[in-house]
Amino acid sequence: MKDLPDDSFHVFDTTLRDGAQREGINLTVADKLTIARHLDDFGVGFIEGGWPGANPRDTEFFARARAEIDFAHAQLVAFGATRKAGVQAKDDPQVQALLDSGAPVITLVAKSHDRHVELALRTTLEENLEMVRDTVSHLRAQGRRVFVDCEHFFDGYRANPGYAKQVVSAAHEAGADVVVLCDTNGGMLPAQIDAVVRTVLADTGARLGIHAQDDTGCAVANTLAAVDAGATHVQCTANGYGERVGNANLFPVAAALELKYGRKVLPNGALAEMTRISHAIAEVVNLTPSTHQPYVGLSAFAHKAGLHASAIKVDPDLYQHIDPELVGNTMRMLVSDMAGRASVELKGKELGVDLGGDRELVGRVVERVKERELAGYTYEAADASFELLLREEIEGRPRRYFQVESWRAIVEDRPDGTHANEATVKLWAKGERIVSTAEGNGPVNALDRALRLGLERIYPPLAAMELVDYKVRILEGKHGTESTTRVLVSTADGKGEWSTVGVGENVIAASWQALDDAYVYGLLRAGVEPQE
Amino acid sequence: MKDLPDDSFHVFDTTLRDGAQREGINLTVADKLTIARHLDDFGVGFIEGGWPGANPRDTEFFARARAEIDFAHAQLVAFGATRKAGVQAKDDPQVQALLDSGAPVITLVAKSHDRHVELALRTTLEENLEMVRDTVSHLRAQGRRVFVDCEHFFDGYRANPGYAKQVVSAAHEAGADVVVLCDTNGGMLPAQIDAVVRTVLADTGARLGIHAQDDTGCAVANTLAAVDAGATHVQCTANGYGERVGNANLFPVAAALELKYGRKVLPNGALAEMTRISHAIAEVVNLTPSTHQPYVGLSAFAHKAGLHASAIKVDPDLYQHIDPELVGNTMRMLVSDMAGRASVELKGKELGVDLGGDRELVGRVVERVKERELAGYTYEAADASFELLLREEIEGRPRRYFQVESWRAIVEDRPDGTHANEATVKLWAKGERIVSTAEGNGPVNALDRALRLGLERIYPPLAAMELVDYKVRILEGKHGTESTTRVLVSTADGKGEWSTVGVGENVIAASWQALDDAYVYGLLRAGVEPQE
Repeated sequence: MKDLPDDSFHVFDTTLRDGAQREGINLTVADKLTIARHLDDFGVGFIEGGWPGANPRDTEFFARARAEIDFAHAQLVAFGATRKAGVQAKDDPQVQALLDSGAPVITLVAKSHDRHVELALRTTLEENLEMVRDTVSHLRAQGRRVFVDCEHFFDGYRANPGYAKQVVSAAHEAGADVVVLCDTNGGMLPAQIDAVVRTVLADTGARLGIHAQDDTGCAVANTLAAVDAGATHVQCTANGYGERVGNANLFPVAAALELKYGRKVLPNGALAEMTRISHAIAEVVNLTPSTHQPYVGLSAFAHKAGLHASAIKVDPDLYQHIDPELVGNTMRMLVSDMAGRASVELKGKELGVDLGGDRELVGRVVERVKERELAGYTYEAADASFELLLREEIEGRPRRYFQVESWRAIVEDRPDGTHANEATVKLWAKGERIVSTAEGNGPVNALDRALRLGLERIYPPLAAMELVDYKVRILEGKHGTESTTRVLVSTADGKGEWSTVGVGENVIAASWQALDDAYVYGLLRAGVEPQE
Repeated sequence: MKDLPDDSFHVFDTTLRDGAQREGINLTVADKLTIARHLDDFGVGFIEGGWPGANPRDTEFFARARAEIDFAHAQLVAFGATRKAGVQAKDDPQVQALLDSGAPVITLVAKSHDRHVELALRTTLEENLEMVRDTVSHLRAQGRRVFVDCEHFFDGYRANPGYAKQVVSAAHEAGADVVVLCDTNGGMLPAQIDAVVRTVLADTGARLGIHAQDDTGCAVANTLAAVDAGATHVQCTANGYGERVGNANLFPVAAALELKYGRKVLPNGALAEMTRISHAIAEVVNLTPSTHQPYVGLSAFAHKAGLHASAIKVDPDLYQHIDPELVGNTMRMLVSDMAGRASVELKGKELGVDLGGDRELVGRVVERVKERELAGYTYEAADASFELLLREEIEGRPRRYFQVESWRAIVEDRPDGTHANEATVKLWAKGERIVSTAEGNGPVNALDRALRLGLERIYPPLAAMELVDYKVRILEGKHGTESTTRVLVSTADGKGEWSTVGVGENVIAASWQALDDAYVYGLLRAGVEPQE
């Protein structure tokens, strides 16, 4: 742990406990172990693993995490509630389950809003304070470090500030290391957080933490406001997962602390792994990574405006708030009708083609992109189609692996309610005429199958390629089905993925174009020599 | 405009200009007009429509917006740059294009960061000030209201505060109504925004606005921090669309101002339309609405924790920061169908059907909606399909005007490069068997024509109906063309417009379903009696 910051500031992750409350997330024990490893790699100080005793999955997680993970940076934390009203902490089986988890640190959730004590807990305000004191003291006596989450603290403080502060003091005086002020309903704004944290810190002398929910869209700012006000423990979740809108997102919080505050909270080198770790965790929970997440999203450093592109060539730092490599991300130039020569040159460079010297060529490419985007094409989401266009201009003619003579797709709704989808393609490849027919679950699928069926014998690399995404957009929606159609296709070959675009007067013709580009690009990638 | 707040505080929307910079958004003029109508319904004070003169699409938008939209609340704003170096504003064709747009308000973007003036604009600091003065004065002399966006203001202020403030003063003294401080690179945090806005306000006396980007995840908080510091003009985009990570999101900003600050910034009743408008705009730009967007996301008031359930029954306000109905959203208990029932009843009421008395019927409808939404249907954007489903449950059987025996669509790409699209429909109506074939510019268009050709003689009202919009979305994109397809169709009959949905294993089958619903609903609307 030699390169870790000291204990004076905590980054506390609760992805495995509060993050798992997000609608659509359902973690297995194996998922939780994998995420714990990623979080430890990232270097958070504490990983809250769940509520042992409350469900068998969490109990199992703690047993396996202790046995299977050799944590390099993080300490494992068990979450649970203060003892029940009217029993002693040492006799409460839920409290005992926290000790049995073997976790060196325990977070206790305590009520701090008077109405919640009375209506949800159905006990007296005094008994609630006693529950806090008794449970904290008991766990401390057993040698555990204790943090206390004051649930609904900010709403409670507004309703009854005196009582809310009594709960903080009770936890603090009983030996809790940190008392965490929770904006459980997420309704606070930064200025409110700042004022309350300052006052509570001055009035109680307790070490304070912050737990923010994102219901106002301010969870990151609320967390930072609490830090500004003196909190030294921040609770976050990876990618902001959590109940309702979610929790404070670990990644922008950690990045702000390291890059904007100059406060070292992660081990050396961890920040540069942030984009990878964010996406890896998204994969584990089976949610598509948000393309627009700060710092780590695919679009976070993507530039579209032509206005910017020319200046970016002069100095990229004029148009980005940090160097994307600091967080393991990269700058991307999007080619669109808003962009000009500079973005085409930059895009060329990204694709490994130096266009700097040839103004005439760049001009031609810009003109073709503009013309085609006017017709409905979009290249910002179709890198492979753009590269084919670029190569065509450089090489003076298009790449060709096959010549299409004609194709036909038939969709039939039969009297028994089933559908038949059949396609036939007629084409020439290496001097041979091929006629191929296939069925599919739709006309595009049938065309895709017929095309590959016909060509695989001649171009074996096609066998490894697979369509992995397919998007349709109708342009100029003013004439209903008479509109232009744009199709975006993503294709993968086990080593990488590429996107192509097709536009046509109907969805089948547009799909065909995108498929054609997809396979031409795939064969180019595979190093296959083009035909005459 | 009687129920609108006065001019002392502006909500300024730039979805159509800066929002359109988001990766993946590509707006047609028709899209822009539709979005402008939604924004006007929401009640923003200003709608920045684009950069007239910079591209033909934006020029056309201004011409059509003036002719076609009768704005109830918003004023249309044209965006453009200060004049070029070394020419007079009156002789600069780009400045003239702003006047030609006819927009009553013009936002000028000006450089305020010294390095940008020198490296991107390649002129002197003094000439840049002169460009601001000259352009603002010229536009003011032509009777336009002028706002000035100080690009890269906060980075510029850090580098050279004196010069940044000179730009603000130049704009202010030349007659700009508002000088907008832009965090163009999005790297700021709320405390920094607060401090800079306070100082600039005190030092220049200019009326200030804020334009925040979300690169640190703090755009909403940064916007509110500027308001706390005295800014009275906030620039936002619907759903936070914008370059890179995006802009300050209009919806949480407006909600915070109205509900947390108690500052009236929208017309009466508008806030309760927020969820609907947010989703409607997402449909137009063809992006899935974020389920986790504050206030308006599907999950924004969804409760998963069993811990909360009993207390929510006692008092829902214990577990939500606002009443979701204030923003047109609903609480959802992820384990119960309570919310579902309420929304079906509400929806029934909206359609003029009182379902309040029949719990069993409502339960049946909830079950069918759930089952169908699981299969990929969406009724939020398909009122007519929902009404047909509702009527089917009330009347005990579906409305039928015709019985389809079978249909077939053929798309053929011919050796000469042209396409043939042909469809045949076989159906029964009023005891008669009809076989009808038609061509179209695509398979769906051909099916649509064949269906209407066959039925128009029997049901003359069909002649007045026209497909006006058609949208396709591929669901579960994990297997490319093998995904499920959802089609939304809008149909009009000169008196109104309605939307229907179809889902199927391919785009043609899904389109057929949506067309079928569209014409059944159209005939129902026209008062035609159904057949056996």
